[in-house]
Amino acid sequence: MVQDWQAKADAKRQAILDSIPEKWRLSSVPSAQDQKDVTGPYIQQFLDPKEIEITETDAVGIAKQTASGAWSAVAVAEAFCHRASLAHQLVNCLHETFFDAALADAKALDAYLAEHKRPKGPLHGVPVSLKDQFHVKNVDTSMGYVGWIDTFEGKPDDPRKGKYESEMVRELRNLGAILYCKTSVPHTLMSGETVNNIIGYTWNPKNRNLTCGGSSGGEGALIGLKGSPVGFGTDIGGSIRIPAAFNGLYGIRPSSGRLPYEGMANSMDGQNSILSVVGPLGSTAGAVRLAVRSILSQSPHLYDPMVVDMPWRDAEEQAVFDMAKAVSGKGPLAFGVMKGDGVVNPDPPVLRAIDLVAAAVQKAGHKVIEWKPPSHEKMLKWIFKTWTYDGGKDVHDAFGLSGETVAAQVAMSYGREAREQFKASDIAATNVEQRQSKKEYLDYWNSTAELTGTGRSVDGLIAPLAPYPAARPEGYKYYGFSAWVNGLDLTAAVVPVTLADKSIDKYPEGYEPVSEHDKVVFEDYDAEIYDGAHVSVQIVGRRFTEEKMLAIAEYVGGLLA
Amino acid sequence: MVQDWQAKADAKRQAILDSIPEKWRLSSVPSAQDQKDVTGPYIQQFLDPKEIEITETDAVGIAKQTASGAWSAVAVAEAFCHRASLAHQLVNCLHETFFDAALADAKALDAYLAEHKRPKGPLHGVPVSLKDQFHVKNVDTSMGYVGWIDTFEGKPDDPRKGKYESEMVRELRNLGAILYCKTSVPHTLMSGETVNNIIGYTWNPKNRNLTCGGSSGGEGALIGLKGSPVGFGTDIGGSIRIPAAFNGLYGIRPSSGRLPYEGMANSMDGQNSILSVVGPLGSTAGAVRLAVRSILSQSPHLYDPMVVDMPWRDAEEQAVFDMAKAVSGKGPLAFGVMKGDGVVNPDPPVLRAIDLVAAAVQKAGHKVIEWKPPSHEKMLKWIFKTWTYDGGKDVHDAFGLSGETVAAQVAMSYGREAREQFKASDIAATNVEQRQSKKEYLDYWNSTAELTGTGRSVDGLIAPLAPYPAARPEGYKYYGFSAWVNGLDLTAAVVPVTLADKSIDKYPEGYEPVSEHDKVVFEDYDAEIYDGAHVSVQIVGRRFTEEKMLAIAEYVGGLLA
Repeated sequence: MVQDWQAKADAKRQAILDSIPEKWRLSSVPSAQDQKDVTGPYIQQFLDPKEIEITETDAVGIAKQTASGAWSAVAVAEAFCHRASLAHQLVNCLHETFFDAALADAKALDAYLAEHKRPKGPLHGVPVSLKDQFHVKNVDTSMGYVGWIDTFEGKPDDPRKGKYESEMVRELRNLGAILYCKTSVPHTLMSGETVNNIIGYTWNPKNRNLTCGGSSGGEGALIGLKGSPVGFGTDIGGSIRIPAAFNGLYGIRPSSGRLPYEGMANSMDGQNSILSVVGPLGSTAGAVRLAVRSILSQSPHLYDPMVVDMPWRDAEEQAVFDMAKAVSGKGPLAFGVMKGDGVVNPDPPVLRAIDLVAAAVQKAGHKVIEWKPPSHEKMLKWIFKTWTYDGGKDVHDAFGLSGETVAAQVAMSYGREAREQFKASDIAATNVEQRQSKKEYLDYWNSTAELTGTGRSVDGLIAPLAPYPAARPEGYKYYGFSAWVNGLDLTAAVVPVTLADKSIDKYPEGYEPVSEHDKVVFEDYDAEIYDGAHVSVQIVGRRFTEEKMLAIAEYVGGLLA
Repeated sequence: MVQDWQAKADAKRQAILDSIPEKWRLSSVPSAQDQKDVTGPYIQQFLDPKEIEITETDAVGIAKQTASGAWSAVAVAEAFCHRASLAHQLVNCLHETFFDAALADAKALDAYLAEHKRPKGPLHGVPVSLKDQFHVKNVDTSMGYVGWIDTFEGKPDDPRKGKYESEMVRELRNLGAILYCKTSVPHTLMSGETVNNIIGYTWNPKNRNLTCGGSSGGEGALIGLKGSPVGFGTDIGGSIRIPAAFNGLYGIRPSSGRLPYEGMANSMDGQNSILSVVGPLGSTAGAVRLAVRSILSQSPHLYDPMVVDMPWRDAEEQAVFDMAKAVSGKGPLAFGVMKGDGVVNPDPPVLRAIDLVAAAVQKAGHKVIEWKPPSHEKMLKWIFKTWTYDGGKDVHDAFGLSGETVAAQVAMSYGREAREQFKASDIAATNVEQRQSKKEYLDYWNSTAELTGTGRSVDGLIAPLAPYPAARPEGYKYYGFSAWVNGLDLTAAVVPVTLADKSIDKYPEGYEPVSEHDKVVFEDYDAEIYDGAHVSVQIVGRRFTEEKMLAIAEYVGGLLA
């Protein structure tokens, strides 16, 4: 018997498909077996040359064309609406489309430019995709929960339903961005894979046997297919970085309080030991930089009380470029390199990516030291506690609205029903552990000044952000490589490095796993399956070093090109 | 029968007195009835003219003299050790003295200056007093708990006992400050009066029938008697501002994350909805500014993971002075004025102080608008919840170490034994309420741009920080005027305004209290008792506006002089 929630989920899934204009619908979608990789030539076949040119230009390039009027905002919006429609049909990456509103906005932007002879803002005519936690007027926010369909965060009669907009949406509109779709997430947001009862599973466009990552998985898949030049995700344990990495993109996990989260839907809202943060993913470092810099130009601290009054700091960025080029006695840069965390060693392609980056920066004259930090295992214990302070009450309440089933990937952390909650003194003790870990790590970071040979401590840490190139369905099981950055509230940027190569990416003969977690990662590895998948690293910096990490990401990316 | 804890407390009290050199001991201390006010001429009689000159110079002036070598650091240290010793005997304001260490440090500073021909740092030779939450080597930190005597935060065998120093202590030593004493606090720190079983009650030096305030009450009393030119307290609900106000001092409650709290003892450590912050109190605005600016010069964010990378911003300060003088088309400033919070109306002297400040800024050409904020009553509900998340477990555990009795002022909030704790989802809900309140308040603040006539929103809010000029023992009962600033994490500076005057400070005929709380405040008022007490206001600014609030405090203080 079909459950009520299934019917509701099916109807919503169909409604998403139906929202795609007839002219952009695919008559059939090949299986993953028949067409593993749907990026590049595969998706291009459905687009005309101008659409390909537009959608394969990065956000910085698009902004240049639309600001000058060389490209109309309407043409750009249409091209991305088209390509996003194709992307969704190929990998299930959208929760919402609002193309008519986008085209109307684009038209208004073209009129604005014609009238004022200047763009509306630094994102004039740039399409920006949004993870389905942003509230946009006239559009649902389901966050993957069947019980949230046609409600405001689960409340069917809330007056904000269909009317309310998140603070960053307001800022993006001010900046001239074109909003046109919202992207898929795992229900609860607490998974490195993107799966829910509405859209099913979002596949990795580069290899449709693998996950696109999560929880900002729809963003990763969509931008990976160039159905968006830049988009915003969120990250409480890796949710921006994992999909950025799995789709060959740049992305940044800013420190908490840099970019405005105000008015977004969330899970476990009010848990404040580790805050989810919002940040962009894009096809180039420049796109990510443009997004961050543009938002900061809006003085978000005046509209989001959690944002710190810290404008974009050009000097922080310039310092990196000066050090990179050893300008006026500055430089070189100093990097730490971390290959494992004492609990897990990453799969061979990830280790190779780390080696590639380390070799590239060394070759360019920079310093590299081995990272020997305080125990990550000890940190991870309190970090994972914060995810279940409420025993899963919040997420199970949301599931309970419809009675829908819990995805295995989520049940892994939250079970199938709520458990006992932490009490105040347990939470306080966890917060003290957190602060102590932060202090230990800070002291360790400072101590590297003795080792780098630059007279300064490490500028950026080259590290894995996941054990896998891109996990297999139900295969994302270890969050230790990403979550420690959230636990310490550091800034981290993802840099795409290479593709997995089955001919070289092999575990050494007789590899002995270092822990139970490592055994699982080791045994799950299959060079054949991962062949051709994107492989990336993260560059981790101190807290509030967004300018610096983006500059390093851009520079390092350039060295690898 | 004398309890074990009483004997221990008595011994500690005696040890504090015994630590005062014989030559500085008073043969007798008059009663409050015989000598209400022990400031000014009263305490001066025990000092020689040079000591008076030194101790009545503010921290900025002292730094100038010691940096040039006009005054030796030893002479300055001795003068303040002497005056602090007198202060303690008159009002019970010290928990620890370490004069020998201070004189040794002063000697080393004099040698440093002689050798290097420059001061060690901007606080070279400036005595700085510390609330008894700071850990200083070779010195106890009891925080007023009998069970903490001769332990490290209640742990008798902790290896840090006697060795560990708080981060800010390290920075103060770097800056050239002379550390010489730690000041009294109410046990638990959670009171607007300073009382504990060790030192008893710290009296207001201006009126020894009244409280010196709390919880940084020892700081207030000591600096009020000019036994210290500047000192550091902490503030989670008013604990810097209340003693600053009650002793006619300047003080600042910075936003959380501006100054380093790392390594300090605290109550309810790990409660992170509202964080206690550290900040200075001083006899002038300049002294407070010097302390904040000096600490920020030490890059505290590299040593305290909770501190934001935000150096002292001269431009923020200069903007105020430019607006104050209407320089180059800037200005005037715009002030909000809040006389009550909808729950309580302050006593007549406090209302008069607010009127005096509002009149002074208006007379100087600045704008003033009435402050009509979102409901403070609603905010205060979740604010006070955060104080008892753990049902008092932390503080009652600390009392339990010795079995000591709980002061009535503390039992008011925490009872005499621990109660039920909040659970995770209750805390999360409180945190959501907090964020929503912050957003509402921010929106209100922004909306004042429509009303000020300056084109900008209000620069600073003139408001009461307590209902009383200085409360009577067991009379500090309403925290609403100070705690909302902590709840919203705003920056607030205290400005001394006037003295209570029984001839004019009267409630209007037939005054009708607006609430139960107001009734208590109204009925407790006695113009006779408060006569001559200090009366102050706070100037509240947006989050992270320390430079701006200090500049305004200095400017406004100048207008009143």
